[in-house]
Amino acid sequence: MKFDLIGFDADDTLWHTEIHYTQAQDTFRQLLSPWSPHEKIDEILSESILNNLPGYGYGINSFILSLIEAGIRISEGQIRGDQIHKIISIGKAMKSADVILRPYVKETLQNLVSTYRLMLITKGDLLDQTTKVERSGLATFFSFMEVVNNKNVETYATVLEKYAVDPHHFLMVGNTIRSDVHPVLALGGTAVHIPADTTWDHEMVPGFDTTQNGFYELEHMGQLPELIDRIRHAF
Amino acid sequence: MKFDLIGFDADDTLWHTEIHYTQAQDTFRQLLSPWSPHEKIDEILSESILNNLPGYGYGINSFILSLIEAGIRISEGQIRGDQIHKIISIGKAMKSADVILRPYVKETLQNLVSTYRLMLITKGDLLDQTTKVERSGLATFFSFMEVVNNKNVETYATVLEKYAVDPHHFLMVGNTIRSDVHPVLALGGTAVHIPADTTWDHEMVPGFDTTQNGFYELEHMGQLPELIDRIRHAF
Repeated sequence: MKFDLIGFDADDTLWHTEIHYTQAQDTFRQLLSPWSPHEKIDEILSESILNNLPGYGYGINSFILSLIEAGIRISEGQIRGDQIHKIISIGKAMKSADVILRPYVKETLQNLVSTYRLMLITKGDLLDQTTKVERSGLATFFSFMEVVNNKNVETYATVLEKYAVDPHHFLMVGNTIRSDVHPVLALGGTAVHIPADTTWDHEMVPGFDTTQNGFYELEHMGQLPELIDRIRHAF
Repeated sequence: MKFDLIGFDADDTLWHTEIHYTQAQDTFRQLLSPWSPHEKIDEILSESILNNLPGYGYGINSFILSLIEAGIRISEGQIRGDQIHKIISIGKAMKSADVILRPYVKETLQNLVSTYRLMLITKGDLLDQTTKVERSGLATFFSFMEVVNNKNVETYATVLEKYAVDPHHFLMVGNTIRSDVHPVLALGGTAVHIPADTTWDHEMVPGFDTTQNGFYELEHMGQLPELIDRIRHAF
């Protein structure tokens, strides 16, 4: 099996992201604790985020607007201007937070780029994602960068068609079954799942069959080059 | 002169956009009028929007966060939860507002698409822009759609390289000198300026030389096919 293109998810595959959202939620919980117990805060926030996804999309601006909306609801409109301002500051801190790479990412990309064309494919806010890839120092490894609204079968099909890549010769690497693995397998591609420490519930796929063709799981990115060699020689 | 690709800006070139921002600012002014005169409100809002552009990017989420921030500043933190909620609702209304095409847009695209490959190139929020092009009914006319963070010389150079188009055979149509005309002329391309009824000051280029090679100005999109024919036969 020869791969014409290797795709990488960005958030929590190349660098840590979820941790920033978790920390933001902690601060939010503290801020709203005069009005509601933590469980109730989490519940309303989670509802606000999911309801807003179709209209606001993924990304930090969207997340902050959902925090503000949830804050107003939880406090029944009593939240003060300076507290809303605090929420806005959380977002600004997230945007300028250091990009911390996950283990073995840099050396693995460095290794693979001498043999393969690499593509970064991520959903989220265009500006957030392009500035993160710049700040990560990884930009030069990628021949293509695609920021998309959603990573489903149709998205992958469109992108692969654009670069004239047969899905059977496409390998995708990512931390979520829902966005990185499932749609790629559905197209006949190969997918490598590298779980992150924490993954958003929204990205889980209950009952996913891990024995199907083309599915591989690794503990960390450092094992990827060897796996790819093994697949190449096996088929 | 043969054109290999015709690019179109989206907001206020294909459809009306600025009007929604103007209406939102009117509502915001009313909301904040207990605290400050209108001129002062406009001044602080404009400052907030421009300061946030590099971090928040273009688009409605970004605009709403700037309104909220300005609202807190103008009211010195006294703005209430229900008033912030009202600002958030302005954003949601903007996102679901009807897409109103500018005059002659549909028939002109319909005419040109039989001869030319058309590209939509727009800055702004990825989700806002993709949903607008879907809702506009114009999506099928475009071979390519590019949502970018900024439309400068480098952006156009990258996009044209991606589609292997020589800038000398590229024609761009848009309502702003800064984003649609200036960078394209700098690359040796052709640019057609179709002014909108209102254009954001930020997009103005004082002292722009309208006599330079490759620059054309039209009153409306309906005049475009004839102009292109004229340029084709003149060179």
